[in-house]
Amino acid sequence: MGFIDEEFLLGSDEASRLYHEYAEGLPIVDFHCHLPPAQIASNHTFRDLTEIWLEGDHYKWRAMRANGVAERFCTGDAAPREKHQAWMETLPYTLRNPLYHWSHLEVWRYFGVTGLLTPDRAEEVWDTANTALKGLSTQKILERDKVAVVCTTDDPADSLEHHEACAGLKTRILPTYRPDRAMWVDRPDVFIPWIQRLSETSGEKIFSLDHLLTALKKRHDDFHAVGGRLSDHGVPTVPTETLPNSELQRVFVRAATGHPATPDEQRAFARFILEEVAGWNAEKGWTMQFHLGPVRNTNPRAFAELGPDTGYDSIGDFRHADGLMGLLGSLEAAEKLPKVILYNNNPTDNYVFATMAQNYPQAGVPGRMQFGAGWWHLDQRDGIRMQLDALSNCGLLRRFVGMLTDSRSFLSYTRHEYFRRVLCDILGSEMRDGLLPMDFDLVGSMVREVCYTNARDHFGFDIDKSFAD
Amino acid sequence: MGFIDEEFLLGSDEASRLYHEYAEGLPIVDFHCHLPPAQIASNHTFRDLTEIWLEGDHYKWRAMRANGVAERFCTGDAAPREKHQAWMETLPYTLRNPLYHWSHLEVWRYFGVTGLLTPDRAEEVWDTANTALKGLSTQKILERDKVAVVCTTDDPADSLEHHEACAGLKTRILPTYRPDRAMWVDRPDVFIPWIQRLSETSGEKIFSLDHLLTALKKRHDDFHAVGGRLSDHGVPTVPTETLPNSELQRVFVRAATGHPATPDEQRAFARFILEEVAGWNAEKGWTMQFHLGPVRNTNPRAFAELGPDTGYDSIGDFRHADGLMGLLGSLEAAEKLPKVILYNNNPTDNYVFATMAQNYPQAGVPGRMQFGAGWWHLDQRDGIRMQLDALSNCGLLRRFVGMLTDSRSFLSYTRHEYFRRVLCDILGSEMRDGLLPMDFDLVGSMVREVCYTNARDHFGFDIDKSFAD
Amino acid sequence: MGFIDEEFLLGSDEASRLYHEYAEGLPIVDFHCHLPPAQIASNHTFRDLTEIWLEGDHYKWRAMRANGVAERFCTGDAAPREKHQAWMETLPYTLRNPLYHWSHLEVWRYFGVTGLLTPDRAEEVWDTANTALKGLSTQKILERDKVAVVCTTDDPADSLEHHEACAGLKTRILPTYRPDRAMWVDRPDVFIPWIQRLSETSGEKIFSLDHLLTALKKRHDDFHAVGGRLSDHGVPTVPTETLPNSELQRVFVRAATGHPATPDEQRAFARFILEEVAGWNAEKGWTMQFHLGPVRNTNPRAFAELGPDTGYDSIGDFRHADGLMGLLGSLEAAEKLPKVILYNNNPTDNYVFATMAQNYPQAGVPGRMQFGAGWWHLDQRDGIRMQLDALSNCGLLRRFVGMLTDSRSFLSYTRHEYFRRVLCDILGSEMRDGLLPMDFDLVGSMVREVCYTNARDHFGFDIDKSFAD
Repeated sequence: MGFIDEEFLLGSDEASRLYHEYAEGLPIVDFHCHLPPAQIASNHTFRDLTEIWLEGDHYKWRAMRANGVAERFCTGDAAPREKHQAWMETLPYTLRNPLYHWSHLEVWRYFGVTGLLTPDRAEEVWDTANTALKGLSTQKILERDKVAVVCTTDDPADSLEHHEACAGLKTRILPTYRPDRAMWVDRPDVFIPWIQRLSETSGEKIFSLDHLLTALKKRHDDFHAVGGRLSDHGVPTVPTETLPNSELQRVFVRAATGHPATPDEQRAFARFILEEVAGWNAEKGWTMQFHLGPVRNTNPRAFAELGPDTGYDSIGDFRHADGLMGLLGSLEAAEKLPKVILYNNNPTDNYVFATMAQNYPQAGVPGRMQFGAGWWHLDQRDGIRMQLDALSNCGLLRRFVGMLTDSRSFLSYTRHEYFRRVLCDILGSEMRDGLLPMDFDLVGSMVREVCYTNARDHFGFDIDKSFAD
Repeated sequence: MGFIDEEFLLGSDEASRLYHEYAEGLPIVDFHCHLPPAQIASNHTFRDLTEIWLEGDHYKWRAMRANGVAERFCTGDAAPREKHQAWMETLPYTLRNPLYHWSHLEVWRYFGVTGLLTPDRAEEVWDTANTALKGLSTQKILERDKVAVVCTTDDPADSLEHHEACAGLKTRILPTYRPDRAMWVDRPDVFIPWIQRLSETSGEKIFSLDHLLTALKKRHDDFHAVGGRLSDHGVPTVPTETLPNSELQRVFVRAATGHPATPDEQRAFARFILEEVAGWNAEKGWTMQFHLGPVRNTNPRAFAELGPDTGYDSIGDFRHADGLMGLLGSLEAAEKLPKVILYNNNPTDNYVFATMAQNYPQAGVPGRMQFGAGWWHLDQRDGIRMQLDALSNCGLLRRFVGMLTDSRSFLSYTRHEYFRRVLCDILGSEMRDGLLPMDFDLVGSMVREVCYTNARDHFGFDIDKSFAD
Repeated sequence: MGFIDEEFLLGSDEASRLYHEYAEGLPIVDFHCHLPPAQIASNHTFRDLTEIWLEGDHYKWRAMRANGVAERFCTGDAAPREKHQAWMETLPYTLRNPLYHWSHLEVWRYFGVTGLLTPDRAEEVWDTANTALKGLSTQKILERDKVAVVCTTDDPADSLEHHEACAGLKTRILPTYRPDRAMWVDRPDVFIPWIQRLSETSGEKIFSLDHLLTALKKRHDDFHAVGGRLSDHGVPTVPTETLPNSELQRVFVRAATGHPATPDEQRAFARFILEEVAGWNAEKGWTMQFHLGPVRNTNPRAFAELGPDTGYDSIGDFRHADGLMGLLGSLEAAEKLPKVILYNNNPTDNYVFATMAQNYPQAGVPGRMQFGAGWWHLDQRDGIRMQLDALSNCGLLRRFVGMLTDSRSFLSYTRHEYFRRVLCDILGSEMRDGLLPMDFDLVGSMVREVCYTNARDHFGFDIDKSFAD
C-alpha cells in the first residue's frame, strides 16, 4: 500500500482482493451530481487544466483562501496559468485534507501525472495535463469511466433540451427535479422572475398557487418523460410548520406581488411544496432526496462580491428529527411516501438519520428509505467511514445505493474509485480481524451491490443494455 | 481471531488473555432488562426457535422490514416456520449490522449451531435449535449463564406476584420501579385507566395528586420489600419546566377527568414526579436510571396497525444539559439526590452525559453518578466503544457498573459476552500499544470490576452467597 | 513503544522518527493559559508536591470526587501529605483517563519518578518529588521547557505589574485581554465592584457605557504596550441578540445601579462588547479567541461551599452556527474582523467550528481563522485526534497554530509533549499506511510548523531572538 498507487487505501490483503476482484472497473451510476448537461450534449472539450480542475470547485477555492491566496486567483480574473500556480503552491498545505488525495488521483487518472504535486512541478503538470486534455471530452470521460447514468440537478423552469440531445449516448443523461425556488416566497426578488421563467418553460400561466402546482406537475411529467426518476430538495431542515390551504394561497399571491413571506410562512409553504412533490414522486415510483443541514452565505462581504454558491457555506447545527418524522410520517399515513434518500450535512446527525430512515419500510421494496452517502464536507475518508458505520450499525449496508459525486467537475468520477477503496478497506480489515466472515463470495457480493448494482436497480432507470449485468 | 469463535473480537494476545483469564465465565448482574417476570416464575419453555429468537425483537423486525419483508412475517400471523425463513433470508443482508454478530452468537451459545447462517440452512437451524430448546427453560438459561440478578422493568401498578414467586431461585428476580405513566397527564385515555389500576394494586383511593403520591410511595415501599433497588424513567428529556403545587394539583384533576394537560404542563408534572421519586430513592439508597432521548411512534401507519413499541422508534436530537443540571442540581441542593445512571440515546450526547455525571459526586460513594452503557441502537460494537471512550476520557471507567441487556429476550445474555469481548479487546490493544501498562493484575482487576463486581456491589442487592465472590 | 517511555504513543517507526527528529525539544509558544503571572515574576518555588501537582487542578479533583474522596482532600483543609495520599490512592482508578498518562508524564519529566504510580509508593514519590522541587522554580521550569511565550489570562481591571516585572526574562510573559466581566450586566453583585476596580486600574471614571468603553479601550492599549496580542472570551455561545445603542446605555446604567439585565439584554450587551473589542483587535493586528460551550456551576451545593471554577462545570449542548456566522459575518462586512481562534467545548461541534472557520479568509493571511485545539475535557488523546481530524478534513492542518496548555499548573508543559506525540503518531501511521507520502521533509515540515513555528509567527509576538529560528 503506497501513496496514490494501485493499492492506495487498501490496508490488507483482503481489502486488495475485494477491490481488485469485485469493485474495480464496475460501471458508475452517478445518481446525484451538478454536471452541466449542456457540456455533455455539446461534447465539450476543455481549454486547459484550470478549466477542468479548478473552475467551479469550492473545495479548492476554500483551501486556497485559507492559505492566504487572493480571490482573483480563485474565482477572479487571474490568468488560468496563474490560478494553476496558486493552486500548486497551496497543494502542499493541504496535507491530510481530502483535496490532497483527490488532486493526486485526478491528475493521475486523467492525465497520467504521477509523483507528488509540488509547486516546482507546476509547469510540467500544466503542460502534461493540457496535452492530455486534447484527447479528452466530456463524453469521452463518461465512456472511459463506464458511467451508466448521470443525474444532473435541474430546476423545473430549466429546459430539458440538453438532456434530450444526449438521448443517443450510451450514458443516460437524466434530469433531477429540484424545485427549491418554488419555496422561496420569502425572496420575491428571486421568486417573481423564477415564476415567470417556469411559466414560459411549462406553457402555464401562473397567477395562483394552483397554477403553480399545475406548472410544477407538468414539468414533473416532462422530467419523467426524458427518464428522470429523482427529485432533490435543499432545505436547512424539513419544516414542521403548516398552514391551511387558504393561507398558503395568500402567501403565494403576496410573494408573487413583491411581499416577502415571514420565516414561518415560508417554512409552511416549503413544507406544502415538499408534500405535493412527494405525492407525485410516489405515484411515479421516483426517489426523493433531501439534502439537509448547511448554513449558506455566511460571509456578507463575499456574498456581495461573488454571490451564492462560491464556497462560503458551511455545516449547520440544526435539529432534524421533528421535521423528518413530521413530514415522512404524514406522507406515510397518506400513502404518499415515495422512496427516499436522506443526506445530512453534519456528521453529528448520522445516527438520527440512519435510524430515522428505518422507520418507514415498505414490503417488497428493500432499501426503500436510504441514509445517503457522506455529502458536502463529508465526502472524505473519515466522513465516508462515519456514514458507513452509522448505516451499518443501524440499517442494512448491503441495501445501500452507495456513492455519488455531487460534483460540478468531470474529474470527480475518481470519487467513486476513492469510495470503493475506502469501502473495500473497511470490509477487508474486518474480514482479516474476524468481524466479517472470511468469505469472499459473500462480502464480495456486498461490494458489487453497494458499488454498483443496488443503484443500477433501485431507481428504475432505463439504462443501456451493456450495463445491465 | 476468527468470526464467532473463542477468540472472536479479541484482536491481540493481551485481549485474549484478559478475556479468558479475567472476564470469561463471570456471573452476570443484569440490572436493567425487559424480561417478563411471569415467564421466569413459571419456568417457561419455548414452543420453537421463533418464539425465543424473533418474537419481541424490534431489531430483527426492523432489519427484515428494511429488507422488504412484509409485516406478517415480523409481528403478524405468518407461521413460526415462515417467520424463521424470512429471518434466515434477511440475515445475509445484515452484514456489519450487530444483528449479524448477535444472531450467530445466540445460536452458537444456546443451540450449538456453528458456521455461517445462510438461507439454505434454515431447515437445519430450525431443527437443531428446536431440539436443543427442549432442554432449555427460562430458569435453566439464567442458571447456565450465572445470572446473579435480573432487574425487570415494572409499572407501579403491576403486581409483584411473579417476583415473589421467584423468591426461591438462586438468581434474584427484582422489580424496577418505572412510573412513566404517572407523568402521562397529556393522555387521559391512558392515564385514567392506569390510575384505576394503580388504585387497585396499591389499595389507595386516588382522587388528587396527594393520593397519587401516596399510592406511588406505597408501591415504592412494596418494590423495596421484594428487593427492588432501582427506578427507571423513560422521558425524551428531563423537563426544565416547573409549576407551583396548586397548579400541579389542578393538572392532575383535569387529566383524571379527561382533560389533557398542555405540553408545558405535562413536562412540569413529569418534573415533579421525578423529583418525588428521586427523594424516595435517596431515602432508601436506590439508584435512579434515566433513559433519555428517543423519538417514539414515528410512523402513524404502523402505530395505527401495531401500537407502540413495535420497532418504529428512533434516535432523537434533543438538548439535554439544561434539563439534567436543573433536576440534578436542585436535588443535590435539597439533599435528595440518589445514585444515578444517565443513559443517552444519541451518541452525539456522549460527552455531555459523561461530564454531567461527574458534577454530582458524594464522599464515600465511588461512582455515585454513572454514565450508562450504550443503549438502544447503541449496544453494538461501535456504540459500546464510543461510550467506553467518552466515559474513560471524562470519568472513571474503573468505577463503571457496566453492561446490561435492556432486552426482552432470554437469548440476550450473549450481549454480556459481547460487551466483555469488546472491553477486553480495547484494553488489550492498549496494553500492547503502551497506552496502558503491561500489568495484567492491574488491568485484569479493572476487567473484573467493570464486568461484574462493580455492579454486584454498587446497588445494594441481597444476592445469593454463591455469587458473593 | 512502552508505557511512558521515550517511545510513548509513537506507534510506528515513522511516528518515532517524526517525533524525535522534528518535534522533540522544539520551543513552546503557550499562547493561552491560566498561569499566575505573580508566581512567574516572583520566581516562585513550591512548598511541596501537593502545591504544584494538585492545587488548582480541577481534573484531579473531579477524579478524586468521582472516586468517593471527601472534599477536604481536594480543595479543603487536609494536610498536603494527606491530599497526596488521596490522589495516589485514586490514581489506579483513573486507568484510561488522561490523568493517568499526564500524571505519570509529569512526575517523570519534572521529578524523575518512573514506574507505575501506586498507592504504596506514595511516600517515595512524595520524598523524591519534594527533593527535586528544591531545585525548581517557575522561571527555571519555563527555561528548561524552552517556553518562548506565555500568554496569561487577565481581566482588564487587573494590574499588569507582574507582566512588567517579567520584562527581563527570556520567556515573554504577556497578558491576554479577557473582559468577560464587562458582559455580566445580569449580575450587578459582580458587575458593580468590577466597574469600580476597572475604574481604578484605568484611571477613568465610569458612569456610562461610553465611559466603560473608554476604560476598556485604554486597558486594551495598555495590554498592547506590554506585548499582549490576544483577547479571549468565555461565553456559552456567541449571542445573536442585538439592541440599539440607547437601550444598551440603559442596560448599563441599570446594572451599575443594581438592577440586573434580563437574559436577552445581557446577551445583546455581550454581543456589543464582543464587537467593540473585535474592532480594537482588528486595528492592532491581534487575535481574538472564543471559548464556547461549557455549562458552569452545575452543582448549587458545591457552588455555595466552594464558589465558581472548582470543577463543577461540564460540556453543554448549545447551537453555535447562528451566533458565530452572525458576529463574524457582521464584523467581516464592517471590515472589523481580526484574526480569530474558535474553541468548542463539545466535540459534537467539531465540524461546525472547523468549517465555520473557513468562511472568513483574508488574502495574505494564511490561517487567519483557526479552529482551536481540543480544549476543556477534550485535551486528551481522543479529543486531540478528533479536533485534528475535523480540522484536517475541512481546513488546513498545516496552518494550525497548535497546542496550548490552558492550564493553571506549571507542570502542564508536558501537555505539549503529549500533543506532539499524538500528532506524530497520527502522521507517522498515515505515512506507513500510504495515506500520506513517505516524505519526511514534507511531513516533518508540517510537524515543526504545527508544533512551533506557526504559533511563533502567527501572533506577532516580539519573541527573544534565541527562539527566532
